[in-house]
Amino acid sequence: MHSKRALSPTGDPWLLTPGPLSTSESVKAAMGHDLGSRDRGFIDLNRRIRERLVDIVRGRESHVCVPLQGSGTFLVESMLGCFVPRGAKLLILVNGAYGERMARMCEYLEINYSRMDYPQHKPCDPAALDKLLHGDPTITHVVVVHCETTSGILNPVEALSEVAGRYQRALLIDAMSTFGAMSLDVTRVRFDALVASSNKCLQGVPGLGFCIARRRALEKTEGNARSLSLDLHDQWKTMETTGQWRFTPPTHCILAFERALQELDAEGGTDARAERFRNNCRELVAGMRALGFETFLPDSLQAPIIVTFHMPGDPKFDFGAFYEGIRERGYVIYPGKLTTADSFRIGCIGDIGTNEIKGALAAVGETLRAMGVTCAAPRVTT
Amino acid sequence: MHSKRALSPTGDPWLLTPGPLSTSESVKAAMGHDLGSRDRGFIDLNRRIRERLVDIVRGRESHVCVPLQGSGTFLVESMLGCFVPRGAKLLILVNGAYGERMARMCEYLEINYSRMDYPQHKPCDPAALDKLLHGDPTITHVVVVHCETTSGILNPVEALSEVAGRYQRALLIDAMSTFGAMSLDVTRVRFDALVASSNKCLQGVPGLGFCIARRRALEKTEGNARSLSLDLHDQWKTMETTGQWRFTPPTHCILAFERALQELDAEGGTDARAERFRNNCRELVAGMRALGFETFLPDSLQAPIIVTFHMPGDPKFDFGAFYEGIRERGYVIYPGKLTTADSFRIGCIGDIGTNEIKGALAAVGETLRAMGVTCAAPRVTT
Repeated sequence: MHSKRALSPTGDPWLLTPGPLSTSESVKAAMGHDLGSRDRGFIDLNRRIRERLVDIVRGRESHVCVPLQGSGTFLVESMLGCFVPRGAKLLILVNGAYGERMARMCEYLEINYSRMDYPQHKPCDPAALDKLLHGDPTITHVVVVHCETTSGILNPVEALSEVAGRYQRALLIDAMSTFGAMSLDVTRVRFDALVASSNKCLQGVPGLGFCIARRRALEKTEGNARSLSLDLHDQWKTMETTGQWRFTPPTHCILAFERALQELDAEGGTDARAERFRNNCRELVAGMRALGFETFLPDSLQAPIIVTFHMPGDPKFDFGAFYEGIRERGYVIYPGKLTTADSFRIGCIGDIGTNEIKGALAAVGETLRAMGVTCAAPRVTT
Repeated sequence: MHSKRALSPTGDPWLLTPGPLSTSESVKAAMGHDLGSRDRGFIDLNRRIRERLVDIVRGRESHVCVPLQGSGTFLVESMLGCFVPRGAKLLILVNGAYGERMARMCEYLEINYSRMDYPQHKPCDPAALDKLLHGDPTITHVVVVHCETTSGILNPVEALSEVAGRYQRALLIDAMSTFGAMSLDVTRVRFDALVASSNKCLQGVPGLGFCIARRRALEKTEGNARSLSLDLHDQWKTMETTGQWRFTPPTHCILAFERALQELDAEGGTDARAERFRNNCRELVAGMRALGFETFLPDSLQAPIIVTFHMPGDPKFDFGAFYEGIRERGYVIYPGKLTTADSFRIGCIGDIGTNEIKGALAAVGETLRAMGVTCAAPRVTT
């Protein structure tokens, strides 16, 4: 039998997934209190969190933060519904499932949109965007996913924002899986709005997210929203006026989030956190390659968030058994989401370091041996 | 100085509000784990919760449960957006702010609606509904708030459902503040859908809610939703197929919710819980009346959820100081929401019993004395 030491301090397997992720014991312990949503302490707590989040993008002069209940998808939909007015046209840059999902949202919200599709192994291309915007003056807004966790690819938001800015089109960013680790400094990336989550790189628990918006852009969104619940302008105006959430807030998640932001500072801020994730990613990729696995992406395109690996070609390999073998050894990995290749994913983010990555690699190796798989190389495709 | 004994075991003031509410220590402690959202244990957990919630309305044969992230308002909006198709017409029964809010949602969602308004101190009237439905065959759906926490009034959902059923109109219920304490047995209340929250009478933490729907009605809602995030049909189909949430679930809130449902069973189920809330309410009303306060509602219309009191007429009374005085003594009360009378509210639900109500009454009495208010009777209106 394998050792139980692999389990986290709370006895849970480590979550090497796109989320929910492993959080620290103290983040979870922060949820041990019930707060009144109209009470002064809670109002102060929200103000601190909103300011801290704006500081992460160095936007205190120009940007504001609007928190909202729900998963990341709720935040993305709230951003599209608020920032793209009726009569405007959205261009969606698609190189994975989250770009696809935004097209689906536009169908629900009856937002006029077009899409620019890239292969899942290629980043969205600023030169192609330039050409498209040059040729289509009807496009008013552009939206891109910073890291498409479908593959793990990093999209070049800085270059894309430069192009969108040159044509005076508003840029919206789904920064769900990158915020807090990959830089989104407002002096380098010009955006009208981005959305992200309390979970992911910020290492809070899931249940809420937030929008960071250029104040002047947000001010103009009144009346745009297609949903009361997801109306970021209404939420913002209420919070600015009263300091309170419009509707019952997830107080426990918010307590965990403040603790998580304190731990971000204690770690040394977003640069230190990014460095840890890069180390995790390097360790993971090197270790998996040593076992014979191949990554879907070249290292130059890989964000240090989640890594996609090709399935081994060995007929003795079975993903269900592989998943369970690693799970029994204390680590949860994730199925693939690619439409073009048979794959699985292992995440690098959350409250984990290279010790956990090493443990996961040992679990992968042991599981392969238990399955009788001697080579993890993918099937050679013709 | 007052004693610190009034504080809850976690050192927090007791929340005598419409929510968030005080939860047990063990419910909060249940959040001390990180779960993978695709993991078997989590899938089983969700199945158990969904079945338990359907059992509360005795609907296992005919009804299903669809959980969703967000506050109660998110659930109400998801219900309206899914169950009222384009071309249909919704009648909103309004006797408080939550009815008003549904009208606002219909504006966002472009749902055709009419409203039937009642004074805030009157329950929605089945006879008036009968007359209205008789005269307007274009109305296809009726929606009502079970307990309007604006005043604390209980609306007669059983009689209203009988009328709606007689005219073959679908009934939708906002049961946010009553589910788990006031009976909504499907054999007595015929509804197509109701929505409620993990917090409130079920005593979980806030952050998710659920819809209980008649399966046959839910099956017909495909394509109705005006929002991907709030699409209950899509969420249901995915959960039926995979057992999983569509988007990152609030895993910690869900862990707390399962624990809360176990504690509901341990207490003796919904009847025992209702009895506790009734006792809380009786104790509260009697104690406040003994101090000179007057309730907004007669006892016959009062739900044992939250009680609205008239502001005292004594010129020495100041609500801000009153709130703070009670807060310092370990209890959080709530401002009023009536448009017709100057009032405040004290809640009866959450993980509290008559000891906490007695403590709150003592705090109210001490605070009045500290303010020099000798009589808490309201101003005599002419």
